[in-house]
Amino acid sequence: MASYRIFCDILLTGDELLSLRKRVAPHEVMVPQRPAGTVLSEGGHDPAFSKADIVVGQPNTESVLTAPHLQWVQVTSASFTRYDTPEFRTAAASRKIAVTNSSGVYAEACAEHVFAFMLAQSRCLPTALRVMAASHESDWNHLRQACRTLKNQRVVILGYGSIATRLVELMEPFQMSIVALRRKARGDEAVAIVNLEELPAALAEADHVINILPDNAESRRFIESKRLAQFKWGAVFYNIGRGATVDQDALLTALRSGQLGAAWLDVTDPEPLAADHPLRAEPNCFITPHVAGGHQNETESLLKHFLANLRRFENGESLHNRVI
Amino acid sequence: MASYRIFCDILLTGDELLSLRKRVAPHEVMVPQRPAGTVLSEGGHDPAFSKADIVVGQPNTESVLTAPHLQWVQVTSASFTRYDTPEFRTAAASRKIAVTNSSGVYAEACAEHVFAFMLAQSRCLPTALRVMAASHESDWNHLRQACRTLKNQRVVILGYGSIATRLVELMEPFQMSIVALRRKARGDEAVAIVNLEELPAALAEADHVINILPDNAESRRFIESKRLAQFKWGAVFYNIGRGATVDQDALLTALRSGQLGAAWLDVTDPEPLAADHPLRAEPNCFITPHVAGGHQNETESLLKHFLANLRRFENGESLHNRVI
Repeated sequence: MASYRIFCDILLTGDELLSLRKRVAPHEVMVPQRPAGTVLSEGGHDPAFSKADIVVGQPNTESVLTAPHLQWVQVTSASFTRYDTPEFRTAAASRKIAVTNSSGVYAEACAEHVFAFMLAQSRCLPTALRVMAASHESDWNHLRQACRTLKNQRVVILGYGSIATRLVELMEPFQMSIVALRRKARGDEAVAIVNLEELPAALAEADHVINILPDNAESRRFIESKRLAQFKWGAVFYNIGRGATVDQDALLTALRSGQLGAAWLDVTDPEPLAADHPLRAEPNCFITPHVAGGHQNETESLLKHFLANLRRFENGESLHNRVI
Repeated sequence: MASYRIFCDILLTGDELLSLRKRVAPHEVMVPQRPAGTVLSEGGHDPAFSKADIVVGQPNTESVLTAPHLQWVQVTSASFTRYDTPEFRTAAASRKIAVTNSSGVYAEACAEHVFAFMLAQSRCLPTALRVMAASHESDWNHLRQACRTLKNQRVVILGYGSIATRLVELMEPFQMSIVALRRKARGDEAVAIVNLEELPAALAEADHVINILPDNAESRRFIESKRLAQFKWGAVFYNIGRGATVDQDALLTALRSGQLGAAWLDVTDPEPLAADHPLRAEPNCFITPHVAGGHQNETESLLKHFLANLRRFENGESLHNRVI
């Protein structure tokens, strides 16, 4: 078996790095002089990079395309924005560099996060955790009447990959009506797939619109004023995809008009949104700071995902979560 | 078919009452001079009550036991505390008065409410909705590392009726390990049932303890300091049963010591808890004001549940949600 040089830019403790070295032997692990701070931050140039056969991290595209031995990049996020351009795709393909992402690692947490949003919204948690009214008071009656059950409600999911697949599983006992928009339907989806032409009709009926779109040229500002006008009045919008897919001014206008009942955002543009951004002051806008993918033992999940793919790479098998 | 006099103490609009009269004909609907404010409040004495064959509402026990024609009481809540005493049970049985509750009406909403609590807790929503940190800041790292997935976690449910049955269905895709405590196991439960002797061992392993106990002599202060000491360190406690089943001083102590990681309460004793009650100031205690059962068209659900039981009553069939 060939021995590979693996450039690994994940923030690891000394023990984790030792363990990784054992687990990948006889391959060699090289680490950058300045490791990335998080799984989301872009790696800088590093002298060791040019020796790498395999990279796991968030390398910049220039480093990838100029590394002479590079065969495979495993991106440590579910998103792969900087690689999702026609130019990079063409260049990587011509250099025969495979690109995989780590969407499988974050699918469970992201699906649970958006589901937490949906239930918090339907059970009015932001208000209910504040109201101290007794059951004969009007505040109590208003709150109790505003509470909803998700059962039988209608959902549109924008972007159908690992996260949506898991989300659909989680929603199954709620007997919701679910359709999803997918770039290229594969026929193996668990729900009905709509295309762009069919989307407006689906949006017009949906109580919940869940955005899991990655950020690329097609998806940028996908949610803008015309699109929002296609939503059912009072629908709830969720975003755990990428902030750049939403025109935030249009979102604000839709929240203020009542077109949107509420927005729950784990991603914004930029991140974090300024403390005085008007979306932060909007009473029906709820923002978490890009933590949907977070979960116990995240580093270990990431390494396991990489190691499983490494075995496939060694054996010449097709890689999991391959995107290029 | 016999024609019954139905005393109905549910707060109805004029249209709702008209509709109810049509739907129950040829039976007669009598309403109290002063209707109850909510489905939770006890009804007072009313002259019409003594003529009733059937009562739907929250009648006081004295009225029930002295009404000469009364055959059936449908309680409008899931709980039936004031009827759940040996004295009332004996007296009602000797008078051949059936008592049903409306737990089926609230099961979906209550199950979704506690599930919203569980997901809000595991996704750290109370903190995540406040933190505005960027992904390289330590606040962000702490938050991201505190986020959990529910998948594969362990749950103990205290009280296994309609709500628990539905909750177990909702949790199914999360592949959690679930056991429940039930007064009398019937053998048809979807999860393993433990008895009081087996409970401490189950509590010692549970990440989540969900209290759906009704309030009666056996359950009062069921959760007290010795019981809490049986919990796994850092477990999360949820209460959508009744506030009286918990010793709130012991709960506070367990939260402060770290024995409990968090408490999510939809019910307290009394309700509402005073604004300056120490549980309200406890950072890991989250309280909603007895709204778990709230949902769209609640009155209509309640009436449908009653009408379905009325058909069964007419036909001499066994009643749904019969508790006495």
